[in-house]
This record gives sequence, structure tokens and C-alpha cells, in this order.
Amino acid sequence: LKRLVGKVMDTACTAKKLGQDDPRRVVHSLKVGAALTLVSLLYYLKPLYDGFGTSAIWALMTVVVIFEYSVGATLGKGLNRGLATLLAGALGVGVHYVASLFGNIGEPIVIGSFVFLQAAISTFIRFFPRIKARFDYGFLIFILTFSMVSLSGFRENSIIEFAHKRLSTILVGGFTCVVICTCICPVWAGEDLHNLVALNIEKLGDFLEGFGNEYFRLSEDEDCNSEKSVLQAYKSVLTSKNTEEALVNFARWEPGHGKFRFRHPWKQYLIIGSATRECAYRIEALTGCLNSEIQAQVEIKSKMQEECMKMTSECSKALKELASAVKQMTKPSSAEPHIENSKNATNRLKSLIKSDLWKGTELLAVIPAATVASLLIDIVICTEKISNSVHE
Amino acid sequence: LKRLVGKVMDTACTAKKLGQDDPRRVVHSLKVGAALTLVSLLYYLKPLYDGFGTSAIWALMTVVVIFEYSVGATLGKGLNRGLATLLAGALGVGVHYVASLFGNIGEPIVIGSFVFLQAAISTFIRFFPRIKARFDYGFLIFILTFSMVSLSGFRENSIIEFAHKRLSTILVGGFTCVVICTCICPVWAGEDLHNLVALNIEKLGDFLEGFGNEYFRLSEDEDCNSEKSVLQAYKSVLTSKNTEEALVNFARWEPGHGKFRFRHPWKQYLIIGSATRECAYRIEALTGCLNSEIQAQVEIKSKMQEECMKMTSECSKALKELASAVKQMTKPSSAEPHIENSKNATNRLKSLIKSDLWKGTELLAVIPAATVASLLIDIVICTEKISNSVHE
Repeated sequence: LKRLVGKVMDTACTAKKLGQDDPRRVVHSLKVGAALTLVSLLYYLKPLYDGFGTSAIWALMTVVVIFEYSVGATLGKGLNRGLATLLAGALGVGVHYVASLFGNIGEPIVIGSFVFLQAAISTFIRFFPRIKARFDYGFLIFILTFSMVSLSGFRENSIIEFAHKRLSTILVGGFTCVVICTCICPVWAGEDLHNLVALNIEKLGDFLEGFGNEYFRLSEDEDCNSEKSVLQAYKSVLTSKNTEEALVNFARWEPGHGKFRFRHPWKQYLIIGSATRECAYRIEALTGCLNSEIQAQVEIKSKMQEECMKMTSECSKALKELASAVKQMTKPSSAEPHIENSKNATNRLKSLIKSDLWKGTELLAVIPAATVASLLIDIVICTEKISNSVHE
Repeated sequence: LKRLVGKVMDTACTAKKLGQDDPRRVVHSLKVGAALTLVSLLYYLKPLYDGFGTSAIWALMTVVVIFEYSVGATLGKGLNRGLATLLAGALGVGVHYVASLFGNIGEPIVIGSFVFLQAAISTFIRFFPRIKARFDYGFLIFILTFSMVSLSGFRENSIIEFAHKRLSTILVGGFTCVVICTCICPVWAGEDLHNLVALNIEKLGDFLEGFGNEYFRLSEDEDCNSEKSVLQAYKSVLTSKNTEEALVNFARWEPGHGKFRFRHPWKQYLIIGSATRECAYRIEALTGCLNSEIQAQVEIKSKMQEECMKMTSECSKALKELASAVKQMTKPSSAEPHIENSKNATNRLKSLIKSDLWKGTELLAVIPAATVASLLIDIVICTEKISNSVHE
């Protein structure tokens, strides 16, 4: 029993955390409940039920299936479902008429082969990467509606009425969803994408800010834990690709909202995102140096410290400027001097390495430091790339 | 018109390529068509239609919605749909009886609030990461069936019959899907996962094999293009995380098949996968060195060449042995000597760097080579990690 209580408490804690992390989740749940209750009026109100009858079920189903978290996803699914139903319904009615020309025996054969053919072809089309990204659901509904309408025609006389009822109830359900999803605390996929991309750049900036201190052991051991979490935050950037792609696909369905107009260049975010990830891969390698057993000697580190610190701090400032420029959609002009500074520090580091300071020290002891230096140089280059892609 | 013809030709080419890359896609499309045609017998055969009536539509819908590419995904969706329908149907009937105690005016209010509550709660539960991974579809169907059954009770007298018909048609549809999906050329998610993980390790091995030649310019320029593609193949490993996770979720639904028994430790593949990715991140950084403007001098490169080549080739052999051990599910004992060899080469490289060979050379010229060396050392460590995780 104690175990059970413990499990329930655990679940409650997780639920609370989920709600606190993003209160929009709670709002979304209530919105789904509201939409479903609204559509069930089709059952409660006698005149409405007399009009739609048992087809009211399609409206219910539409709400449950297409109501997604973000406006873009809901709109995308709704448009897919509406258009596919319209198209497949019309085709289904057409096939039914063609088949009825073949007489009682031929009809089921003709309908059957049409159903088989369109299911196989549509299923194959769903493998096309472009279709999969944006119209997967539409093709699913196309297969479904086509089979349903053409088969119903075989048993029911009023095939047009069937197709019409299905289409109109789906429209009612879809409309309810879209209105509730868009008008009550909307969750815009575009805005989420925008913030995610900016946040990812900022995380890299935070890492570089903390890295200098951690590597040269400047900070006290006390706040070690909070430091560590800053140095771990970048890890989520490494695997952000799929999330970004999904959000871009949703965002492209969304109408203009807030500071975004309708055909906002969403794809540009993918380019910024992949530049950010490239930089994150370098940082991952840098972390390897941080945790490696072979460390450079302290005196060697201290010789390079000034320039390396300069490089990391300037890069970090540049990245943070870029992040805020993305967030506020301004030209990232304030990032440029920082990039210039970090490039200058790179050059000074190079000439420092060229100088005679190192005579007498062992090469093996220099190498870890040299690796850090060259990765930092790479990161400066990546930062410039990010800056260029933000500019566009 | 010419443009149109060109586009059609393009699409045909893509379709052909999709089919050739994985012929199972074509088979899958035909399987979906066959399942749908089979279920439509519910319409054609009079005795069957007399039994199910218009509810036959649920069977059709079940086939279209749950027939997925792999057996695991189909089984997972089918079980989700079946169990959720059973549970929600029972609850819906219960709520209907409770509501009917409240009289004509109270009934719609009680039903409405139950529908609202369960929709909101279930939607929120879908945000739990664990639920989302395995039971997302089940909760969707739960919301749907519960609302449908409890609302139908409000208008139809035979609520039990409604729930019963829905459940039985869904079972018929689900059963058809599972049988066709499993018995005709099944696509096992577990097998795909198994091959993917092995292939990813092999790709890293290929890269390391090609890297030595590319970095030390041993190969002629002629076969440059095929070399380049080998050096690019690892990129897909960087972003394989989501695919692996999805496949693991599907594989866990699958019964024992071929060389895999029922509770095969699928999660171990995630651990191997993440070790592989860690190694791939280092390789990404290594590619940065390959394309960097600052290159080590040729004479310095040639001094390190022997040991570096040894390291890459031994690592590459070890990785390939590991890949084939994963593929054949044997103990990767043949990989161990190669790892030992690469460790020895690492130590020789270290002592080479310690030696006096370098007096008089500029430090700046050594650094790029040093970076490569230390990344290679990291890769040797990662390779060992992969080997350990494969062992388990």
C-alpha cells in the first residue's frame, strides 16, 4: 500500500512539474474539453440532432483527432482533413456511378479494385519525404473517405447525402477546433520555433561564458553545481533538429500573428539552427577536453589564459547579442564588434604560440591546451557563420 | 507543358528510387490495399452486412488508421485502440446509467461535465513523456470512445448495442491488420533497429578508414568523390537519436521473431546508440580539422603519420568488428586486440610527441596536427566505450 501511495505521489509531482514548466499545457487540456463539450451540443439540441443525426459522430471525431497543441498543427490537420474529405468524397461518388454501369455482378468487382488501387497508391505516396512532412494526414483521410463513400454507395441509396453529411459535420468540427484553438490563448508554433532558436544560441553563449572559468579553475568550488548545469545545458542543442523541423512544418500553416507576417521566412530558422548545431558539436568536443585525464600544466594554461578567456567571453557576448537580435528581430549589428574582438584575440593567441615563450616546456604538456585553443578558433568561425545566417 | 512533363518525370524518378531503396515499401502499399479490400467484404457479403450494418465503417477506419509500416507500430496502435475502446466503452455505459438517475434535465448536464472532465484530464495525461511515447494513441481513442458512447446513450436507446458493435468491428479490423501485417513479408521494427545500430557503428569505422588517407593525402585525386561520400556518411549518425527512440518504442510491442526473443533488451541499443553518437561528435570536430585553412606542415604530418594511421586503422577495424558482432549477436571478442593495438599506438604517439624530434619547429605548425592527435585519442576512448556497451 505504501508503495502505491508513493507512486501516486510521484505521479502527482510529475503532473505538477509538467504544469508549472509550461502552464499552456493546462490551458490546452481545458480547451480540448471545451471544444468537445461545444460539439456535443449537436446531440443535446433537438433541432441540430434532427439535421445531422448519427453523423454528428464525425464532428466529435474531428475535434478529438485534429485538436493539436499549436495553432499550426491544428490548422494543418484541419485543412488536410477538410480538403481530403472533399476530394475523396467527390471521387468516391464518381467511382460509384461508374461502377453502377457494370451491373449487379460487376459493381462490387469494380469498386473493390478501385479501393485496392487507390489505397496502395496513396500509401506509397505517403513515403515521399515532402508529402510525409506536410500532407501525411491528408492522404490517410483520403484513403479512408474514398473507401467509405464508394462502399456505402453499394449498400445505401443516398450516397450523395452520406458524402454531404460527412463533409458538413467534419467542417463543423474543424471550424470549432480552429476557432477555439486560435482565439483562446493560442499556442503559435512559429513563436515557439523563434524562441527555441534564440534560446539555443543563448545556451551556447552561456556555455562559453562558464567554460573559461571552469577550464582555468577560476571559480570557487561552492557554486560548482550551478556551473555544471550551465555547462550541460548545451546538450539539448545537439538533438534539436527534429523538433525544429516539426515546428517549421507547423509554422508554415499559420497565418500572420504578432510580429510574424504570413509568409515569414521560416526555413531560414533551419539554416540558423544547423549553424548552431555545428557550433554545439565543437563544444561537445571541448567538453571532452574539460573532462579528459590528460590536462595541460597549470603554468602553460596560465600563459594562454588571457587570450583564451578573451576569446570565450567575446564569443559568448556575440552569441548572446545574436540571440537577442533573433528574439527581437533586429539587425545583429551589436554582435559584430564582439566577433571582431574575438578574431583579434585569436590572432594574438596565434602569435603568442609562435613566440619563444614555450622554449623548454614539453610538447606533450602543451597539446591539450593547443587542442582547446584550436577548437576555440573553430568556434569563433562557427559564431561568425551563425551571425551571417542571422543577418539574412 | 514541357515543365509539367518534366515535373511528372521527376516524380516518377523519385518514386522509382523510393521503391528501389527499400522494396518493402511497395509490398507495404499492396498489403494496405489487400487489408482494406478484405475488410470491405463486410459490405459485400449480405449475411455479414446484416450483422454489422453501418458499423462496418469502424472496421474500415481501424484498418486505415492502425496499419503502420512495421509490425511493432501496428501491434502497438492496435492494442492501444482495442484496450482503450473496451475501457472507454465500459466507462461510457456506466456514466450513462449514472446520468440517467438525474432525470431529464440533469442528464445532459451530468454527461456534459463528465465529457469535459475526462477530455481535459486525458489530454493533460498525454503530455507525460512516458505516456506520450507508448500510449498516446490509446488516450486519444479513449477520449473519443468515451464521448461517443456516453453521448449516443442520450439519443439512442440501445447504448449497449452501440458499444458492442463498435468494439466488435474494431476487433475485426484490428485482427485483419495484425494478421496481414505479421504474416505477409513482415517488417520488424526490432530488426530495423538492430541493423541501424550496427550500420551506424560501421559508418564510423568507414570514416576512420578513409580519414587517414585523406588527411595524409595518400590517395590519388581520381577516386576523390567516392572517398568524399564515405567521409560524409557519418553525418546521419549525428541525428539518429529520434529514429532510434521511435524504433525502440515499436520494437517493445513486438513478439519474439527470428533471433530476437520476446523481452529482448531493446533499451541497450539506446545506450550503444548514444555512445556511437558521442564518437560521431568527435568525428565531426575532426572533419573541421580536415577542412580547416590552417594545416600542419607536411614534414610534421609525416612524422606523426605512422602512429596516426595505426590509430585510425586499428580503431576502424575495432569498430567494424563491433558492428559485425552486433549484427551477428556474438561476443565482440575479436575487437579487443584492435582496441589494444590502438591504445598502444596512442602511447607511442604520446612518447613521440615527448621526444626531441620537434626541436626547432614552430609550435603553431604543430598545433593542428596536435589537435588531430588528441581528437584521435578521444575517439579511441569512445571506441572502447562502445565496445563496453556492446558487451553488456
